[in-house]
Amino acid sequence: MASVITCDAAVAWGPGELLVLEKVEVDPPMAMEIRVKIICTSLCRSDINQWENKAQSSLFPRIFGHEASGIVESVGEGVTEFDVGDHVLTVFIGECTACKHCLSGKSNMCQVLGLERRGVMHGDQKTRFSIKGKPVFHYCAVSSFSEYTVVHSGCAVKLDHDVPMDRICLLSCGAAAGLGAAWNVANISEGSSVVIYGLGTVAQGAKLRGASLVIGVDINPEKYEKAKAFGITEFINPSDCDEPIQQVIKRLTDGGADYSFECIGDTKMVSTALQSCCDAWGMTVTLGVPKGNPEVSAHYGMLLSGKTLKGSLFGGWKPKSDLPLLVAKYLNKDIEIDNLVTHDLPLKDINTAFELMKKGKCLRCVIHMPK
Amino acid sequence: MASVITCDAAVAWGPGELLVLEKVEVDPPMAMEIRVKIICTSLCRSDINQWENKAQSSLFPRIFGHEASGIVESVGEGVTEFDVGDHVLTVFIGECTACKHCLSGKSNMCQVLGLERRGVMHGDQKTRFSIKGKPVFHYCAVSSFSEYTVVHSGCAVKLDHDVPMDRICLLSCGAAAGLGAAWNVANISEGSSVVIYGLGTVAQGAKLRGASLVIGVDINPEKYEKAKAFGITEFINPSDCDEPIQQVIKRLTDGGADYSFECIGDTKMVSTALQSCCDAWGMTVTLGVPKGNPEVSAHYGMLLSGKTLKGSLFGGWKPKSDLPLLVAKYLNKDIEIDNLVTHDLPLKDINTAFELMKKGKCLRCVIHMPK
Ligand SMILES: [Zn+2]
Ligand SMILES: [Zn+2]
Ligand SMILES: [Zn+2]
Ligand SMILES: [Zn+2]
Repeated sequence: MASVITCDAAVAWGPGELLVLEKVEVDPPMAMEIRVKIICTSLCRSDINQWENKAQSSLFPRIFGHEASGIVESVGEGVTEFDVGDHVLTVFIGECTACKHCLSGKSNMCQVLGLERRGVMHGDQKTRFSIKGKPVFHYCAVSSFSEYTVVHSGCAVKLDHDVPMDRICLLSCGAAAGLGAAWNVANISEGSSVVIYGLGTVAQGAKLRGASLVIGVDINPEKYEKAKAFGITEFINPSDCDEPIQQVIKRLTDGGADYSFECIGDTKMVSTALQSCCDAWGMTVTLGVPKGNPEVSAHYGMLLSGKTLKGSLFGGWKPKSDLPLLVAKYLNKDIEIDNLVTHDLPLKDINTAFELMKKGKCLRCVIHMPK
Repeated sequence: MASVITCDAAVAWGPGELLVLEKVEVDPPMAMEIRVKIICTSLCRSDINQWENKAQSSLFPRIFGHEASGIVESVGEGVTEFDVGDHVLTVFIGECTACKHCLSGKSNMCQVLGLERRGVMHGDQKTRFSIKGKPVFHYCAVSSFSEYTVVHSGCAVKLDHDVPMDRICLLSCGAAAGLGAAWNVANISEGSSVVIYGLGTVAQGAKLRGASLVIGVDINPEKYEKAKAFGITEFINPSDCDEPIQQVIKRLTDGGADYSFECIGDTKMVSTALQSCCDAWGMTVTLGVPKGNPEVSAHYGMLLSGKTLKGSLFGGWKPKSDLPLLVAKYLNKDIEIDNLVTHDLPLKDINTAFELMKKGKCLRCVIHMPK
């Protein structure tokens, strides 16, 4: 039977406090769990938002990170799906394949292994991390800013050994979420107009569906060239505009875009996005996870005019059922995620990655674990 | 050429003030307009809401009413669709059949004859009603609380002479809106659970789609028997509940209904409706037109969990394209609207109808014009 592993992890001791590299003890996997040696993990905006979230201060110390690739180090009792040495992607929402939602064909929100918010393992509601006996909380059922982590076997997807570990980690959350929001949730149609607040793979999803106008809104002009590469046809920097951004969008799209996406996690921006899509059939999809005020305000008249407001968590993908398909598309070059990576950094520089993302200076940073 | 008609109309002199039967002058129809002798008109909640709306006080004196059946008395220049003597239904949103929205196949929000909010005719932005030379404003492009009215020819639909005028008027707004919300907007699937805030034909639409649980929420227990007749399987009176109504619904539906509908026009109720539908695929449709605060508040987490919030104006029906089909269904007894009528009243008792609806004591009141 596996024993406790002591390894390096980037630990957040309090909300917004710089991460500290600590030696942590990682317990062996319990029933239906696997322990994974992390290879690469990319930083996601929701790591930042929840790291800064003072309302969650009781869940510190905590190990963030949820977009990761790794290798199974040991498996707990009852695990038949994975063997030691398997390459895996971690996923922040699991798929039990047996609950009402998993069986529905209509939702990826597993009722058993859905979004984990309490920082503990599903099985016993305890942590598998500790520092000198003091529990260290998990994040989003993954906690990949550690050399080793323990995840429920429902929160991992097997990969072939030829899949590049340093890029595929992006498909475990952000990149897949954007494509799914465009394809599964919005179901973008050919020739349509799309506006995206905060860039990302929504643009690529829109382009691959044949959208004719894909407007990216971002405060960082340095992202423009990158953005064009993955499908943005117009780039707007709100700082350059003399009028509210939704007015600019309405002018560019003859009354409003067919689809608008909010990818930042700013509830005010959801209202702006709703105002940016057209009456009659405009659809706004929210992907971001907000750090602040969680209330979205929408003018009733906009809804009555026919607009739809929808949320998208992980783009509607069921991880076990759907991710292998996306991985195959990536290997086949049907989708492109490599160009989302603007920075590759070692674990010891993780605070730099946080800083880059907070300042909007990166698209995705990939953190490489020590060899 | 037609001349001015002087006739009786129920005039609202100020927001919330009792209607007064006045002699009004009704101008002849101008280009593309028709003048209609109203036969029957039913009272709708949006008449009440806008009559009480102090923010619209500049649009008084005003003639309300928009659900009506009548006979064409004269036609303006250029009208080829209607002849004198034609039976018609009035509609509060028109269909020009030529604009981007009308041609889209995706929306009933005509860009030319969509929701009229300024109380004047589309052609010249003036009124066709006056009292001793003083203009009297229109309401919703119809103004049917008058023996005669003038409407744009795009805001009327022709009826066969055998259609019962005293009941078909309900299809010109409320009854059609509810069926359309259930069928076109929500697209209710067989075996699903539905909760409806404020009763009406949404329930019938749900029943005809094979919903297995249709919960009606209303503060008036007297409506229960009626409600059962058109498809409600469970009736809940919030006054009888010790806990928030959304909790009761969640218990009855194992976590939330598949669909929830807000038919009252209360923006707080929209939030309640959103909380009453299930995570993952729950859909909330708003049909009511609010009189007060127009801002809907929705918790971001509910959207991220997969819920959809959508508005429905006239149930997505295009009046000219779709109403004849609904009328045929009514004549064929595929849909039932007669049992929505709880009161038949003469025009002189219109304030009684207002009172009944304000107190929630009626489903629909039909106002009969003097013979
Ligand atoms: Zn993420
Ligand atoms: Zn499940
Ligand atoms: Zn109405
Ligand atoms: Zn039109």
